[in-house]
Amino acid sequence: MTRTQHSSAAGQPEPPGGDDPALPPVEAAANVPLDCGPLLAAYDEVRSATEALAAPLSPEDQCLQSMDMASPTKWHLAHVTWYFETFILTGTKTANGDVYTPHHPDYGFLFNSYYNSVGPMHARPERGMLSRPSVSEVSAYREAVDSAMRHLLASGQLDDDVERRGLLELGLHHEQQHQELILTDIKHALSANPMLPAYAKPRPLANPPALASHEWVDHPEGLASIGHDGDRFAFDNERPRHRTFLEAFALGSRPISCGEYLDFMDDGGYTRAELWLSEGWDVIRSENWNAPGYWFRRGESDPWQIQTLHGPREVFPGEPVTHVSFYEADAFARWAGSRLPTEAEWEVAAADRETSGNFVESGFLHPRAGEAVTGAEAQLYGDVWEWTASPYVAYPGFRAPEGPVGEYNGKFMCNQLVLRGGSCVTPASHIRATYRNFFPAETRWQFSGIRLAKDAR
Amino acid sequence: MTRTQHSSAAGQPEPPGGDDPALPPVEAAANVPLDCGPLLAAYDEVRSATEALAAPLSPEDQCLQSMDMASPTKWHLAHVTWYFETFILTGTKTANGDVYTPHHPDYGFLFNSYYNSVGPMHARPERGMLSRPSVSEVSAYREAVDSAMRHLLASGQLDDDVERRGLLELGLHHEQQHQELILTDIKHALSANPMLPAYAKPRPLANPPALASHEWVDHPEGLASIGHDGDRFAFDNERPRHRTFLEAFALGSRPISCGEYLDFMDDGGYTRAELWLSEGWDVIRSENWNAPGYWFRRGESDPWQIQTLHGPREVFPGEPVTHVSFYEADAFARWAGSRLPTEAEWEVAAADRETSGNFVESGFLHPRAGEAVTGAEAQLYGDVWEWTASPYVAYPGFRAPEGPVGEYNGKFMCNQLVLRGGSCVTPASHIRATYRNFFPAETRWQFSGIRLAKDAR
Amino acid sequence: MTRTQHSSAAGQPEPPGGDDPALPPVEAAANVPLDCGPLLAAYDEVRSATEALAAPLSPEDQCLQSMDMASPTKWHLAHVTWYFETFILTGTKTANGDVYTPHHPDYGFLFNSYYNSVGPMHARPERGMLSRPSVSEVSAYREAVDSAMRHLLASGQLDDDVERRGLLELGLHHEQQHQELILTDIKHALSANPMLPAYAKPRPLANPPALASHEWVDHPEGLASIGHDGDRFAFDNERPRHRTFLEAFALGSRPISCGEYLDFMDDGGYTRAELWLSEGWDVIRSENWNAPGYWFRRGESDPWQIQTLHGPREVFPGEPVTHVSFYEADAFARWAGSRLPTEAEWEVAAADRETSGNFVESGFLHPRAGEAVTGAEAQLYGDVWEWTASPYVAYPGFRAPEGPVGEYNGKFMCNQLVLRGGSCVTPASHIRATYRNFFPAETRWQFSGIRLAKDAR
Amino acid sequence: MTRTQHSSAAGQPEPPGGDDPALPPVEAAANVPLDCGPLLAAYDEVRSATEALAAPLSPEDQCLQSMDMASPTKWHLAHVTWYFETFILTGTKTANGDVYTPHHPDYGFLFNSYYNSVGPMHARPERGMLSRPSVSEVSAYREAVDSAMRHLLASGQLDDDVERRGLLELGLHHEQQHQELILTDIKHALSANPMLPAYAKPRPLANPPALASHEWVDHPEGLASIGHDGDRFAFDNERPRHRTFLEAFALGSRPISCGEYLDFMDDGGYTRAELWLSEGWDVIRSENWNAPGYWFRRGESDPWQIQTLHGPREVFPGEPVTHVSFYEADAFARWAGSRLPTEAEWEVAAADRETSGNFVESGFLHPRAGEAVTGAEAQLYGDVWEWTASPYVAYPGFRAPEGPVGEYNGKFMCNQLVLRGGSCVTPASHIRATYRNFFPAETRWQFSGIRLAKDAR
Repeated sequence: MTRTQHSSAAGQPEPPGGDDPALPPVEAAANVPLDCGPLLAAYDEVRSATEALAAPLSPEDQCLQSMDMASPTKWHLAHVTWYFETFILTGTKTANGDVYTPHHPDYGFLFNSYYNSVGPMHARPERGMLSRPSVSEVSAYREAVDSAMRHLLASGQLDDDVERRGLLELGLHHEQQHQELILTDIKHALSANPMLPAYAKPRPLANPPALASHEWVDHPEGLASIGHDGDRFAFDNERPRHRTFLEAFALGSRPISCGEYLDFMDDGGYTRAELWLSEGWDVIRSENWNAPGYWFRRGESDPWQIQTLHGPREVFPGEPVTHVSFYEADAFARWAGSRLPTEAEWEVAAADRETSGNFVESGFLHPRAGEAVTGAEAQLYGDVWEWTASPYVAYPGFRAPEGPVGEYNGKFMCNQLVLRGGSCVTPASHIRATYRNFFPAETRWQFSGIRLAKDAR
Repeated sequence: MTRTQHSSAAGQPEPPGGDDPALPPVEAAANVPLDCGPLLAAYDEVRSATEALAAPLSPEDQCLQSMDMASPTKWHLAHVTWYFETFILTGTKTANGDVYTPHHPDYGFLFNSYYNSVGPMHARPERGMLSRPSVSEVSAYREAVDSAMRHLLASGQLDDDVERRGLLELGLHHEQQHQELILTDIKHALSANPMLPAYAKPRPLANPPALASHEWVDHPEGLASIGHDGDRFAFDNERPRHRTFLEAFALGSRPISCGEYLDFMDDGGYTRAELWLSEGWDVIRSENWNAPGYWFRRGESDPWQIQTLHGPREVFPGEPVTHVSFYEADAFARWAGSRLPTEAEWEVAAADRETSGNFVESGFLHPRAGEAVTGAEAQLYGDVWEWTASPYVAYPGFRAPEGPVGEYNGKFMCNQLVLRGGSCVTPASHIRATYRNFFPAETRWQFSGIRLAKDAR
Repeated sequence: MTRTQHSSAAGQPEPPGGDDPALPPVEAAANVPLDCGPLLAAYDEVRSATEALAAPLSPEDQCLQSMDMASPTKWHLAHVTWYFETFILTGTKTANGDVYTPHHPDYGFLFNSYYNSVGPMHARPERGMLSRPSVSEVSAYREAVDSAMRHLLASGQLDDDVERRGLLELGLHHEQQHQELILTDIKHALSANPMLPAYAKPRPLANPPALASHEWVDHPEGLASIGHDGDRFAFDNERPRHRTFLEAFALGSRPISCGEYLDFMDDGGYTRAELWLSEGWDVIRSENWNAPGYWFRRGESDPWQIQTLHGPREVFPGEPVTHVSFYEADAFARWAGSRLPTEAEWEVAAADRETSGNFVESGFLHPRAGEAVTGAEAQLYGDVWEWTASPYVAYPGFRAPEGPVGEYNGKFMCNQLVLRGGSCVTPASHIRATYRNFFPAETRWQFSGIRLAKDAR
Repeated sequence: MTRTQHSSAAGQPEPPGGDDPALPPVEAAANVPLDCGPLLAAYDEVRSATEALAAPLSPEDQCLQSMDMASPTKWHLAHVTWYFETFILTGTKTANGDVYTPHHPDYGFLFNSYYNSVGPMHARPERGMLSRPSVSEVSAYREAVDSAMRHLLASGQLDDDVERRGLLELGLHHEQQHQELILTDIKHALSANPMLPAYAKPRPLANPPALASHEWVDHPEGLASIGHDGDRFAFDNERPRHRTFLEAFALGSRPISCGEYLDFMDDGGYTRAELWLSEGWDVIRSENWNAPGYWFRRGESDPWQIQTLHGPREVFPGEPVTHVSFYEADAFARWAGSRLPTEAEWEVAAADRETSGNFVESGFLHPRAGEAVTGAEAQLYGDVWEWTASPYVAYPGFRAPEGPVGEYNGKFMCNQLVLRGGSCVTPASHIRATYRNFFPAETRWQFSGIRLAKDAR
């Protein structure tokens, strides 16, 4: 691997953490007081994108819950709707002048996810037991709320209501998070079917591009700033922007490929305790893991297959490896003589890049074979969420927002790791340099992958 | 409770175990060589009865699996079809002269239930993960097999094939067993939904009849014969007919009512260790049981409600108590100073009765308030399966049949108890005096109830 | 295997179920009103036998609890003492004229086993957590109770107290049951130590006798009586003596040997589903059983070893196989084309035999290689407890005794199987033809073995 | 609470992380090449301190293992001995000139804790099953190794062997860690006994000193250095010393008291979801926690009791609260409107303090009522390990040592939190400002307590 000098953001006055592109229609109006026209356009765009994702799925598909951490498509469709009903519509006036009444008295209980402050909720592992309301009843729920939302936004009731406009914007980003989960959850659920059905027909693929070489991109030491403090939207956990000291480091120019991961496997990666965190070693033995998630093969000498959202196929050596846990990412890095980056290192490297890449809009719904990598420029967005070495904790000076949405992020700040950069099923407008995703170390059903880092000499 | 003398079958030369009514069209031809006309009529009748049971359920409903022991409606629909495809159609000639080929190459794996000898199978607890094949694909599967079966029966290929005709008749009784499970399983699944949806609209009820008094019906001691040896259909576990010695005993004239069970509850039934088998005491504490299954109430002073296939309603004191485990039945009997009957006692008492009662055809889908009891005549069929004190074991001289159906009953003869008499969701033509149902002691999702017995002094 | 006609007890007027030898000193006085001299001798004999069993064990050994179903030696020593203190000494006068006060206020809680009616109790799985009271404190407890018991018996207070004399006799048999458990439990606990320590030094063995051939001993059909109704001691579960009808059957002349069991293993016994009860098949796969308990070997081609109370050694083909579950016994029998006997068959065959055999007093502490078998005479006692096909249920007319000891046996009559005949660690005076031992089907830590039966023609 | 200005180490050139006092005899020679005299003295001191801790315990006590994470005293005694045998004695010459042979061929397997690179090991949860080797055999093992070690140190073989001298010093610190665990583990084990026995007789207590007021001590923002780079001993996880940027913060002047924690409890602390991390909320409900570990009371209106190493007694309001999980510490801090300190904040505050406090040598074996606090000077050492908000991760530039001891700390860097300062059962010579202890968030059996911090402003 060669070494390329790179002018790092570390030590620069102010990396542009606050100027990222987010949901396009809303952010166009970000520096002036919001009027609700762009909000309405953004609302319609996000809501219809969600429905497009559910469209290929039958009512039976939409009810599946294959593990506690995943939810049925139908539940996602209803839950994001419940958010708008609960946090935006409550107390507003409808078209006929009445105060808005909830669409159904039981939905608040059924479709609350984890907001203890809003009231009791249905147990997460039981979401797959809800054959009723049916898919068409949930569809009617969406339409009713959409209609009420459109009336509300047109009515001018929110024009002076900065708090609700903020909650509405949060609701759109929240729904985008669930768009990604609709895909990762249905992938997990369909893979529990021995017939290995596809979520969608594959789009015809051109020849996969050749894999670029893996380069090291250097970054100098210095006091850097990370986090978000601009006017544009960011989740509470990205704030406040703050200083952190970084030693000089180098970052790999692209995610690790399946071919490189196969080398690790062939070198006994899953059988050598010295490569693993103690917990990771326990997990791979108790779970009998000897390859990434969704990999399978008939016999020991058969080639590895992978289940994708387009059905099963052979593993391509040149494509980024994905569905690895933090433990596997960490063990691979140790085997490779390097380590995972911290989230500060990642953000400093990403701060001045465009957030372009292989996102959900490409329709590939899988990391693509290396084509985004050109020369020594590290492509940091899309394809796979990149595990960092950083546990998910509050930034210095973090304050949870007041009210129910104060539960949004802060209460999960324990025993999770930060992932960065978005994946092939993330909406493009959802990601930014300061974005902090987080999952427990054993998580594999997300499109998670490996970026290497190392200390500069 | 009064005591009534009854002329018992015990000691009689030969109780008529072999002359019970079963599936009407087939048994009409039981004593002469079968031709396939009645078989076809029976086939059509059983198959359409199954579909009628599934009709009120949406595709989402039909996919639900709420516990390992229960299966989705869709799975039941496909599994009983797989039986005919595998054991009857395999190797036969289709209308165009070809050897029959299975409808789908994966269905053998997916819809085998437990026949190890037929090949590997999909894990039972994962049946709820099968969104595909869809309900309409399963419907197409049923139609394809039905069409092939009708051709086969019309073609004369089975006219000389006694073995396959026997397997076909077994398949019809097998499908009737799954008809009952369709109802008990969907009841369990729908009750996991906090909205407590109904399986079907209730039919209008006339005033419930008054509860008859509980009488003791005496039976003398003697050498009795139980089991089945007639020509008509019986499961392997009902054979062979054999002798057993019975001490004099008395049997309660009707099942125990909810009102009587409430007396037990009010008398501290669930809190007094001396009333319980040791295992039962452990179970009610670990499961926090303090009432029968499907009973619930808001607060300690509210009346008990029950979830039925027609939705929730108040508990009627006069109706038979149901959804009790063996442990609860046994504890109730001990509290009442009596005991549960053995299966031999039950069969001797039932042998000369008509198999009439509240079965699935009545459409009540719940035990009815006592009306079937008149005077001292014990009504032993329908309403609730009656727990006996008899562990489910092989009869003396039992031989499992040759071939795959040898797995049908024998391999479950351990740690289960025999239940007798059929329930409100059993097809009327399915039951007979010698019929042995069996479930583990903690089972509550079946329509199981309590019949008392006691030693004659 | 040859067939030998045998004059069976079946159909005879009254097999001598009530005349078995039990604890020698007490039974000598069985037909006349008890005076307490023989009781005192029996008490001293039983108590000192218990202590002799504990003598080879260090204080550390005596604290071990290796599974929920087993108990530490020290707990056994204290629990049997608590029985006498609670059921005999309570309310009696001590040497100085005071009413007896319990030795320690906490021992009632700690050493009650399962008598709910006597009060709360320490959780069974936590018995290994009791480092205190120490072994020497338990020893002092035993001495204090023994001293009080001796005074009581000498004082004449029990001369007219038939109930307490009965409870005392029960206490002696109860202590003998725990003598057996001391050995089976410590065997299990020591085998959890990778050093495989021995309980005791082996005694020098003469050449093992040659294994007798396996013969079938026929028994005619008929109405037989089983159970106990004599004056001598029997547990409540052996009563009442009652009639049962037996078809003609044949019983194997000796327990199955390790060599025969190895044939079953070599024939794929543990890999053929059709040989197993459904539950058994699940258990052997989830537990990875492929040989009897305490068997192990280094590699696939090494000879099987067995851990004994004298430490590990090779398996002898000629010795009775032991530490098999009911599932394994049942599968072996099916493989051999036969079945397990019912407990009635076993008892009828055993009723007129002497209860001699390889019991704990022989000091072998393991089934011995076949020597007890001579010709066609089935040796039915000692060596291994023989699994029967009979679930453990109440005999017709069974009545649990009044008072706390009513919990002794009845509440366990569910999901257990009856074993007959005693084992190499049973006290000889403890066994009789009517004796019913019982354990769950998966039990392997007892010295349980296999006796075959089959239907006559 | 008042605010006191404090001259913080943050931003200072070099906080004295490398000059801490450690094991006294060894460190006296830290700056000159080691000769083995001080090492021998240190060895003898540490080894005899361990034995003094075990002395009050009976052989039965020393075998107890009450949970997977804890080990029996006897195992600790043998394991630390195994360390010296394996890493120091292997390959050296004994007094008679032979190469050292291990004391017992099985001990390597039994007493390895987690060094995968050294070979297979006995499963941790099974350590309580080792009645053999006995306590006296372990004692003989200790004596044999001590004798060989003393010979080795006197022989001059290590004079030029810097690596082994380093491993020996590591072994002494390792044994000190196990000294602490001997006490926390036996406390847990004895508390599983309903008699609540004491580890040791209490020493007479003078009147507890009055609780000092809780003050805030300010620290300015700045670039600080933390970690260890001196010559003296430190664990690998304390290295390397490195720069980190701290915002201005304030630290509480003393640990939170039981009285303050009771205020939190009385204010509904355990029933208000908004105070808890999501995981913590799940844990307190599934574990039914409503008070710190070892607290209990008879009824709802009785005063809280605490089980101590000297037995049960009332909770003193003025003593530091201990046996709280990270979740409880975090929830308390949120309730108090503050937060937990980061480990960097803690270390910067502690860097120039003497490491004096209530350590194991005081013999109290419990946090003492506040007496160590004088005025505004925060006492940061002893009494309770203080949970920090910092997940346990590698410092920038961390390198695991070569060889087996490379497994010592690094492989546990996942899903644990750092604790600082030592406790009432930590040896005084074991602690230093840079010392990083770590446990999972739900841990309560250590003497863990609460130090508050808050952002300045």
